[in-house]
Amino acid sequence: MDFDLVSEFNLINRYFKSSVPDGVLGIGDDCALLNVPPGLSIAISKDLLVEGHHFFSSVNPYFLGQKVLAVNLSDLAAMGASPLGCLLGISLPYSNIEEGWLQAFSQGFHELSKMHCCPLLGGDTVRSSQALTISMSILGTVSPLLALRRDRAKEGDDIWVSGSLGAANVAYRLMSGTLSQDKELLSATRKALEQPKPRVLLGQNLLGLAHSAVDISDGLLQDLSHILRASNVAARIRYSDLPVAKPIEKLPSESISQAILAGGDDYELCFTSDPIKRSKIREVACEDVPLTLIGQIENGRHIIVVDSNGKPMTNLPQGYDHFSSYDV
Amino acid sequence: MDFDLVSEFNLINRYFKSSVPDGVLGIGDDCALLNVPPGLSIAISKDLLVEGHHFFSSVNPYFLGQKVLAVNLSDLAAMGASPLGCLLGISLPYSNIEEGWLQAFSQGFHELSKMHCCPLLGGDTVRSSQALTISMSILGTVSPLLALRRDRAKEGDDIWVSGSLGAANVAYRLMSGTLSQDKELLSATRKALEQPKPRVLLGQNLLGLAHSAVDISDGLLQDLSHILRASNVAARIRYSDLPVAKPIEKLPSESISQAILAGGDDYELCFTSDPIKRSKIREVACEDVPLTLIGQIENGRHIIVVDSNGKPMTNLPQGYDHFSSYDV
Repeated sequence: MDFDLVSEFNLINRYFKSSVPDGVLGIGDDCALLNVPPGLSIAISKDLLVEGHHFFSSVNPYFLGQKVLAVNLSDLAAMGASPLGCLLGISLPYSNIEEGWLQAFSQGFHELSKMHCCPLLGGDTVRSSQALTISMSILGTVSPLLALRRDRAKEGDDIWVSGSLGAANVAYRLMSGTLSQDKELLSATRKALEQPKPRVLLGQNLLGLAHSAVDISDGLLQDLSHILRASNVAARIRYSDLPVAKPIEKLPSESISQAILAGGDDYELCFTSDPIKRSKIREVACEDVPLTLIGQIENGRHIIVVDSNGKPMTNLPQGYDHFSSYDV
Repeated sequence: MDFDLVSEFNLINRYFKSSVPDGVLGIGDDCALLNVPPGLSIAISKDLLVEGHHFFSSVNPYFLGQKVLAVNLSDLAAMGASPLGCLLGISLPYSNIEEGWLQAFSQGFHELSKMHCCPLLGGDTVRSSQALTISMSILGTVSPLLALRRDRAKEGDDIWVSGSLGAANVAYRLMSGTLSQDKELLSATRKALEQPKPRVLLGQNLLGLAHSAVDISDGLLQDLSHILRASNVAARIRYSDLPVAKPIEKLPSESISQAILAGGDDYELCFTSDPIKRSKIREVACEDVPLTLIGQIENGRHIIVVDSNGKPMTNLPQGYDHFSSYDV
């Protein structure tokens, strides 16, 4: 109502308008229009990021522009979907967001957008007296028969995880003060928090290989539990096989287990597949994105994490409590 | 990061989970999955609504739940698209939003959602210390050959508008205090502001009849200017033919012209079509949604509003200033 519309158009045109593939109607109409290749389904997801909750006010806007898209691309990756495009909504504070900020934010966004062929198709902006709030919806395509759904895990499946775990959570805890200051550790972990790499290509490569997948942005146990609940199965995880991020290896063991089992913001994929596919899955791994076999799907309604002697660990990190509702 | 995930899932499951058509994977995975009938394009749009900007804090949550969906459905209507589904993001203030509020909001949403076969496919919620911010993305399908784009208006086209104009803007001005209190007038106009009816069926009926369309939620001149700019044409509007909403007819003429030319929040369609289609278009009109011929598309780069003597009106309302950037 009191929204300055000319500013909205200028803002979208100046910073966010991008070229779209042939046949796509992008920013500038009531809706964007795009075609879906025959035989493929639309995959669609949405994430809302609020300053002070999902990112620090001090975040580099270039990184934030990347991360907003990265967390959405990660949802596509977890279905094995290929990006088609995205929609961006920003509620910008009147006060402390200047032209330079928008420039850096949009630059970060566009770089990742080009890398993943995921053009901006539309959006909505508003100036408000509130904290910066960013909303993104993302669209992709995937074969409906092969899509990596959460409800397709099978008893006997291997459980795999990509990349390494815990660095982003340690960086978050260093920056929020729940871990005591350590400049060296922060500089080694901060990139994992601020510039996560969505595993889009890995997701696509797992089509036909994995039965189910999820991204573990809310923590490994929390997100794995979604697969278990949806597939009505249980999991046994070997703690000593979990790929701990190098920079956090020397932290006290409790900090490590908190970070790798329950810490959020690792935009890695956890997926399950038939053991018969192990060698093919190892072929999909690469230096940048190692894949680690961390456990098995079994019958039941639990997650058991076993230590190197095969004994169930009892002192699981706090984040695991989130999951207790599953176990009843 | 500090977001309580169990609450998120409970909240979505309790209030927003809805049944989806066969073959659609709805809430509960990383992405929703849905199929697009062969030959149709995806139409997609997004709107962001912020408390204090797009709605009053005192708004009835049942109406707000309807309006969030209605303004998005209106974008589909303006393309002639049929709804497929939507995604909802809510940043909920910690403080003043209670269970009763969510119940009423979701009830309003679900009722309109069922009426238009537009199920909720996914979403994201967060509790924050900020004002209520609601983001919605909507998905529809439309024939790419018939879609009502903004860039298809032709010289000689008739210009039509649906419904009646100005009531929502008058209600807004009464409630924000820029028009002096008038309980009777407010009660006669408030529904137009708080419960707009998206013209989804009209949009679909105009496929093959209209060349271009836009919804006029930002005011008739402002939104018509989008068609003109995109189609590289001009418009002549006959002021005396504009369908003024009954309850505002007795206001001073300046208030009326402000409301009907520049006032926002009328979720009506403005569209252009070949004069040869007039009788077919009149068949599409009905008692609830009258259609009024208000002017013509002509050559040039202007909007002229003429009075009953055919003379261009010079004293156009303030909102028209927004449009000045077009005229250069």
